[in-house]
Amino acid sequence: MLEQLKEEVYQANLELPKHGLVKFTWGNASAIDRERNLIVIKPSGVDYATMKPSDMVVVDLEGNVVEGNLNPSSDTRTHAVLYKHYHEIGGIVHTHSTWATIWAQAGLDLPAMGTTHADNFYGSVPCARFLTQAEIDRDYEAETGHVIIETFQQRNLNVLEVPGVLLKGHGPFTWGKSAEAAVINSVVLDEVAKLNLFTRELNSYAEKLPQGILDKHYLRKHGKNAYYGQ
Amino acid sequence: MLEQLKEEVYQANLELPKHGLVKFTWGNASAIDRERNLIVIKPSGVDYATMKPSDMVVVDLEGNVVEGNLNPSSDTRTHAVLYKHYHEIGGIVHTHSTWATIWAQAGLDLPAMGTTHADNFYGSVPCARFLTQAEIDRDYEAETGHVIIETFQQRNLNVLEVPGVLLKGHGPFTWGKSAEAAVINSVVLDEVAKLNLFTRELNSYAEKLPQGILDKHYLRKHGKNAYYGQ
Amino acid sequence: MLEQLKEEVYQANLELPKHGLVKFTWGNASAIDRERNLIVIKPSGVDYATMKPSDMVVVDLEGNVVEGNLNPSSDTRTHAVLYKHYHEIGGIVHTHSTWATIWAQAGLDLPAMGTTHADNFYGSVPCARFLTQAEIDRDYEAETGHVIIETFQQRNLNVLEVPGVLLKGHGPFTWGKSAEAAVINSVVLDEVAKLNLFTRELNSYAEKLPQGILDKHYLRKHGKNAYYGQ
Amino acid sequence: MLEQLKEEVYQANLELPKHGLVKFTWGNASAIDRERNLIVIKPSGVDYATMKPSDMVVVDLEGNVVEGNLNPSSDTRTHAVLYKHYHEIGGIVHTHSTWATIWAQAGLDLPAMGTTHADNFYGSVPCARFLTQAEIDRDYEAETGHVIIETFQQRNLNVLEVPGVLLKGHGPFTWGKSAEAAVINSVVLDEVAKLNLFTRELNSYAEKLPQGILDKHYLRKHGKNAYYGQ
Repeated sequence: MLEQLKEEVYQANLELPKHGLVKFTWGNASAIDRERNLIVIKPSGVDYATMKPSDMVVVDLEGNVVEGNLNPSSDTRTHAVLYKHYHEIGGIVHTHSTWATIWAQAGLDLPAMGTTHADNFYGSVPCARFLTQAEIDRDYEAETGHVIIETFQQRNLNVLEVPGVLLKGHGPFTWGKSAEAAVINSVVLDEVAKLNLFTRELNSYAEKLPQGILDKHYLRKHGKNAYYGQ
Repeated sequence: MLEQLKEEVYQANLELPKHGLVKFTWGNASAIDRERNLIVIKPSGVDYATMKPSDMVVVDLEGNVVEGNLNPSSDTRTHAVLYKHYHEIGGIVHTHSTWATIWAQAGLDLPAMGTTHADNFYGSVPCARFLTQAEIDRDYEAETGHVIIETFQQRNLNVLEVPGVLLKGHGPFTWGKSAEAAVINSVVLDEVAKLNLFTRELNSYAEKLPQGILDKHYLRKHGKNAYYGQ
Repeated sequence: MLEQLKEEVYQANLELPKHGLVKFTWGNASAIDRERNLIVIKPSGVDYATMKPSDMVVVDLEGNVVEGNLNPSSDTRTHAVLYKHYHEIGGIVHTHSTWATIWAQAGLDLPAMGTTHADNFYGSVPCARFLTQAEIDRDYEAETGHVIIETFQQRNLNVLEVPGVLLKGHGPFTWGKSAEAAVINSVVLDEVAKLNLFTRELNSYAEKLPQGILDKHYLRKHGKNAYYGQ
Repeated sequence: MLEQLKEEVYQANLELPKHGLVKFTWGNASAIDRERNLIVIKPSGVDYATMKPSDMVVVDLEGNVVEGNLNPSSDTRTHAVLYKHYHEIGGIVHTHSTWATIWAQAGLDLPAMGTTHADNFYGSVPCARFLTQAEIDRDYEAETGHVIIETFQQRNLNVLEVPGVLLKGHGPFTWGKSAEAAVINSVVLDEVAKLNLFTRELNSYAEKLPQGILDKHYLRKHGKNAYYGQ
């Protein structure tokens, strides 16, 4: 079932090491079929070199396995919670990519300091809080999803305008309308995290991008009158 | 039309990811035919893997499409303004290359701190100011070109001696007598930006290169009595 | 003799340059056959490109050559001391990998600041002290092993829970149940060293991972009820 | 003439981009035939992809071309001065490798902070002073060689024990008994420069390696009773 979506999720997972975002089996990409409410996700701890599209696991919106012989990613319930809450999301990616993880470990929001950021993220990428001990004990992976939702609600953010988050002490999650879009947002997030780290080192007084330039770059690519691309 | 120039521009664009200066479709290279006053430029948002020389777009000095089925780069008017003003320029490259972009985000001129710099840039590479809201609203891409010209005029710089600029909060533009030369200047600019960032981190009192060594290195390669190369 | 173990050790050594952890012939991997108490280790200073499985050297627990035409790694006695003392170790790797070596040169323990660390190391990776002149003169390589043992004893650490150490002014040793596991721990240690260095640069007040999250990540992968992987 | 030496110098030059030490045509390697007092060196500004062993240029100890259709490296006279003064040197390499160049731009000696350094350089790698205007005007490249000699004399250093130097505001020169040895020393110097830069960033109080460990590592590889390698 869902052969095409499995192929897409498989390809999205392969893109992650190709872009230098994951080592070994760290990281996972998924996508959802919104008509059937079924999620396709990478199996847990399987080597990329031998992994096949048919190894992708199908789970429902509670994270229960519907099809597949392998265990799904240990982060499956985080994906499921996000898909359930945000109907506009079609694909999700989690990595420990170096530079985004550094901001996550530093516990800092990633501010929009340049147009590379503005081309893809409409404002700061938030850093979510640590889970409490009670949340860890209750259901670590599902609660991770709830903390992401809480973060976006508290800051009144639109998940398609800011398609990613940093989990404090952990690493980034990104998403988009498809798994492929989520991969692209992962690549951008990691690059922007690198740019901004060294920008601060070079000039601790470096300014955030003026709102007018942030608007211009985000909207010329994603707004109603977008004129970037074909 | 302009088949050879299209091939050159196509090759120059392919050089950018090869040198690690662009990810995805970020960045663009162009060249001009000075006899016909026609610019050849990369199409907007087209994948490098499938892009063909015949996909290159021909535009006039106002940035209007003269030939081509694809939309030209969204930065086309910046290129056009520069070609129109500086007759000595034959090729232009724009990237968000990591280290040059860091200096652009920091809003700092890139000083000549070593001979790697002096071999290619005869003095500091200036960082141009942010565009005003009025400029953004009027014609963002064309005004970007005008701010570059303003910067070179205010500092009394020769565009062939200093073949590049940093756009504050954005990234570098470089140029040269050909698209290939502009690519080389992009590579050098990014490397020098990396060298100088870490030089400052290592020694915040590091000096600029003495004028005599700057002269020697620039002129032995680009002066009347140059003796570098064949 | 020990043909299969030689093949494993050979492959483990080849993994090191593939993961960017060693240049030239720096670094060495070994494994032990616990039934025969024989160690298989890389020969000293032999080029990876021409090295064959049959070049691996067999030594006993004192580091004496039992089979092989080549000299074993100059660090052989350090490996032997560790195998002799810690019966739970099956493979050992030594490198001068960039980021772990930086922490070793800085003389600092590597704290658990994120889940990348917690997934593989259950707490700080200790930095062992410099050897004294007397130790250097007595038997440098064997004493290096003793200083590692001393470090783990003083801190009351379990070598399988914290499968690595930093040697002050030198570089990392890692280990595991097999040579392959030791290689993985080397890769993780180097990545975590990079993450934590830049985390500190970004935010000098960055916190260590809360104990509850450290527990959760280490134990979901390595505890009794582990549910990571297949 | 000197076909074998040309092949060695050609291979040494190709190693430089392979190890990430040079971009484009920056950098040059040479070797000397001590019986004939003839130096073989890379031609100036020739592309590595098309360069052939027969393109190597033969010059005498004054830097005059003895054989070859191409201009020798613009740095030829620096090489010649060093070969003439130091009879123990068989090969020389000059690059603008990133991390060594950063120390050169910072104007700082590279101290021995770890065993990676001690395995190849017996103490600090000195940073030579800027040339004076008179020296630049007289004969820039030859005077560069004289400043290197001056630096080693003032500090009473043995060129085989410390087989490299940083030229202030420029980059490294390394050497050895052969061109291949000089290449290895270039790789080590760049890696050590990277290690030490970030060691200082991580811990500004990081110590130099104790003399006893410096002795042990240098001498077990290069001393009378060396036991590293085969």
